[in-house]
Amino acid sequence: MPLIDYPAPIRELIVQMKSLPGLGPRSAERLVMWLMGRGAGRVGGLAKALGELQERVGICGECGFFLQSGDPCPLCDHPKRDRHLMCVVEAAADVLRLEGSRAFVGLYHVLGGKLSPLDNVTPSDLRIDDLLRRVRELEVTEVILALGADVEGEVTANYLADVLREGGVMVTRLAQGMPAGGGLDHVDELTIFQAMNGRRRMD
Amino acid sequence: MPLIDYPAPIRELIVQMKSLPGLGPRSAERLVMWLMGRGAGRVGGLAKALGELQERVGICGECGFFLQSGDPCPLCDHPKRDRHLMCVVEAAADVLRLEGSRAFVGLYHVLGGKLSPLDNVTPSDLRIDDLLRRVRELEVTEVILALGADVEGEVTANYLADVLREGGVMVTRLAQGMPAGGGLDHVDELTIFQAMNGRRRMD
Repeated sequence: MPLIDYPAPIRELIVQMKSLPGLGPRSAERLVMWLMGRGAGRVGGLAKALGELQERVGICGECGFFLQSGDPCPLCDHPKRDRHLMCVVEAAADVLRLEGSRAFVGLYHVLGGKLSPLDNVTPSDLRIDDLLRRVRELEVTEVILALGADVEGEVTANYLADVLREGGVMVTRLAQGMPAGGGLDHVDELTIFQAMNGRRRMD
Repeated sequence: MPLIDYPAPIRELIVQMKSLPGLGPRSAERLVMWLMGRGAGRVGGLAKALGELQERVGICGECGFFLQSGDPCPLCDHPKRDRHLMCVVEAAADVLRLEGSRAFVGLYHVLGGKLSPLDNVTPSDLRIDDLLRRVRELEVTEVILALGADVEGEVTANYLADVLREGGVMVTRLAQGMPAGGGLDHVDELTIFQAMNGRRRMD
């Protein structure tokens, strides 16, 4: 008697789902069973949304935030933003957290990660050359480091402060109002607002 | 200053993801951010797998298990299975749990749920008419009720035992080796094996 299993398309989707972050084998199977049953009407919408993500979303070559294909960058190309003030963040999602706090009106620079020798993340893996070029070209007067308060965030902040000060620009960082050990992802907007206002110069 | 948000395709995918069972707004956002970054190579595969699910998977009109379009049912059309023995389960996933225990070689019947007055699930919402027709047509001699040991499972088992016995067929159920309050989803294969072997007749 051969062992019965789901048809190949179901197995393939379970394989695809269970390797997504935060989904294990059991929750992936339950999700696919839901899509085969009560959620059948949602399969098309999900597939379409994934297709649109691939086709219509790009990344701004300057700041590193997301961009709808063909559109100008909502941050870099906004006429009212202060082009001499630049805020460095780890990830694109951090831009939304800072915008939500309404404490910052300058430009952003998404690093794409933080230095981590244990995970083999070195300065050349982050968008640091682009940062130095933009600071020079835009004649930025202050760079605000809005990195997480964990060990890798501290290491990255200290490294960036060193290379940026060599170029003669003032470097500040978010005030230590942020909870220790946490990234921008885990704090509320008021905390971000206070941290932005209390930022201190790195000497 | 307008509030910055993700481009529309990203927002749309977050909306789609966060309404899936087991995914909240935060985990949906993190998942989409992962797909925009390190997981970019996975977007196409996921969209394709969802499309295949929609196009190539159907449900067997007899047993209710999944079927690859165009193929015969791997259960109903298998020549070596005992066609006079029928096992009733709540959901298609339960078939795999029972097959994994290798304790059963008859046919299956997927009910598609269990009776639940609180959720407005009545006998007409389940595949009970199909079950009675198959039992009659196939001249089934024993129907094994492999339903969860929770309240709705008990109610469903008692209801089915009543209508099936009227037709003169023997009705058995899985032995109460199963943990109280749990469905087939939560037990290991050995427990299912013991429960199948110790099944008892309903009088």
